Amino acid sequence: MLRVPYEELKAEIARVLINRGYTEEKANSSAELFSKASLDGVYSHGLNRVPRLVEYIDRGWVDVNGEPTLMDTNGLMERYNGNTGPGDLNAKFCMNRAKEIAEENMLGMVTINNTNHWMRGGNYGWQAAEDGYIGICWTNTESCMPPWGAKDSRLGNNPIILAVPNKESPIVLDMAMSQFSYGKLQVTRLKGEKLPIDGGFNMQGQLTQEPGEIEESRRILPMGYWKGSGLAFLLDLIVTLLAKGNSTAELDQLKPESHVSGHKVSQVFIAINPNDLSGEAFTEEVVENAIEHFKEAQPSKEDGVVSYPGENTQKRRKENLKKGVPVDKSIWDKVTKL
Amino acid sequence: MLRVPYEELKAEIARVLINRGYTEEKANSSAELFSKASLDGVYSHGLNRVPRLVEYIDRGWVDVNGEPTLMDTNGLMERYNGNTGPGDLNAKFCMNRAKEIAEENMLGMVTINNTNHWMRGGNYGWQAAEDGYIGICWTNTESCMPPWGAKDSRLGNNPIILAVPNKESPIVLDMAMSQFSYGKLQVTRLKGEKLPIDGGFNMQGQLTQEPGEIEESRRILPMGYWKGSGLAFLLDLIVTLLAKGNSTAELDQLKPESHVSGHKVSQVFIAINPNDLSGEAFTEEVVENAIEHFKEAQPSKEDGVVSYPGENTQKRRKENLKKGVPVDKSIWDKVTKL
Repeated sequence: MLRVPYEELKAEIARVLINRGYTEEKANSSAELFSKASLDGVYSHGLNRVPRLVEYIDRGWVDVNGEPTLMDTNGLMERYNGNTGPGDLNAKFCMNRAKEIAEENMLGMVTINNTNHWMRGGNYGWQAAEDGYIGICWTNTESCMPPWGAKDSRLGNNPIILAVPNKESPIVLDMAMSQFSYGKLQVTRLKGEKLPIDGGFNMQGQLTQEPGEIEESRRILPMGYWKGSGLAFLLDLIVTLLAKGNSTAELDQLKPESHVSGHKVSQVFIAINPNDLSGEAFTEEVVENAIEHFKEAQPSKEDGVVSYPGENTQKRRKENLKKGVPVDKSIWDKVTKL
Repeated sequence: MLRVPYEELKAEIARVLINRGYTEEKANSSAELFSKASLDGVYSHGLNRVPRLVEYIDRGWVDVNGEPTLMDTNGLMERYNGNTGPGDLNAKFCMNRAKEIAEENMLGMVTINNTNHWMRGGNYGWQAAEDGYIGICWTNTESCMPPWGAKDSRLGNNPIILAVPNKESPIVLDMAMSQFSYGKLQVTRLKGEKLPIDGGFNMQGQLTQEPGEIEESRRILPMGYWKGSGLAFLLDLIVTLLAKGNSTAELDQLKPESHVSGHKVSQVFIAINPNDLSGEAFTEEVVENAIEHFKEAQPSKEDGVVSYPGENTQKRRKENLKKGVPVDKSIWDKVTKL
């Protein structure tokens, strides 16, 4: 484990993207999103993901020149075609437009189809909340999870992000529909550990905490069992209809190769200015009271801490800014050679 | 177990509400919502809930004459004060307004504060979807669940409803944030059974399937563990800001007595016309393809069926319409005497 200063990490990723044909402006913008993910501790969608993006660019799945083009608008809702451009830049553009619309109309909704994996979804929640907006966004994905009661994968992981502004530290939930990601299963297996709770079914159809058994069966568990199963299905349908894009069903048919992920997906971005509704004083008071009430809960373990979504992210960010961003040496070596 | 014809059930509940001072129109409207809940198999929020509503009316917590009054509007978003009127009628009014706004503007958002428990939330999803709208609504509640990592209750059950229209049978998800309700724990305990999966913690802080142990500790489990915990917190904050209403923190301070439920809560109702975005043909095709893809999944058990949210509801509805609505005899006897 190496620690690299945030600015150095960003500059290095930008260099790689410029090498792949990004303009300097786009390379810096994308490098910032990747670096922020690593900075906040979401390593899987930060630096670690850069080699795969480069592979997707080289295969022609991500078009470095692709940019969103407006298809429809009614003033408050804009619908874009993502033209298979870089998913992170497309997503940032959409949340930015949602904020601009909300600045004038209190609420803005932007949808995009034919876009690519947005990498760390939480970035777009922080993007809204740090500017004082409620942010809501979600994406669909190709399927990776069986519906409740089924063996075969039919549901996307369809992460949803909900973000609320707060003076000191926004509250940002970045949540996929599976209880654990395949990445988490792999990491846990490699450590020789078990999952803390059941993460899926084994080949015999029994719930298990053994990551290797779930990787074998490919029967990862929806969060909340039947609940996450239902939620994943509805989120896919709604975003598909709003963006007039591909649903998980269609993505499963489109997949160019079995390991491609997040290609030609549909996404929605909503920004709302809570102060327009109720004034800044009310917004601050509600959020502060809610956090105070929440934090009064006694921890279940003696040395435990009760944290709201985004609270630990903020702490990690500060620590990593100070000490440098943790990077995996083998990945860092790989990226510096790209 | 008795079976009562749907129309008889509705007439009987309407009679009770007229006795409590409802106008005939309001009594019929509310009786329909209660009866539909029972008809669809959501017995806990159908007939079974009527005695408690009557109690709340008698205590003055539900004002039979309370109606929503408009506080703010910007054309697309309307905000109401519910004036502690009947929560079911207030909620039906709000989803109806959201649909009316969406009919003209593609999207309508209606919020309400100072309202009462909406009884079965799913009703308002069906209300949107049966008329061809995407429906999204949620409510906050007083706390009933500890955040992840905590012992003390600080999170509401904050159910969310997502609904998508579909020619044959709408897709409607009606989902609370706890993995199981306290009602489910009680029913399971009385049968002498265990929960199918962990439902909470016992007094020793261990996850357990024993309903009685969870009732004792009051440490019910958020669905998806830390995920539902985060989602419940964010849904509360967002609805509170949108409706300029009470948050769970404030509801916990307001509670007139420990068992009052859903008093002076905040709710949001969103309706979107998917056909405005993409045409009816596209909407139908997307939903049909998604259902077909979903239903192709092989069941995990030999005699199993893979069902989407709302599918079984529709089946139960047809059966109960034909055979009569199942009612608990002791509750039926109680209601007929009210």
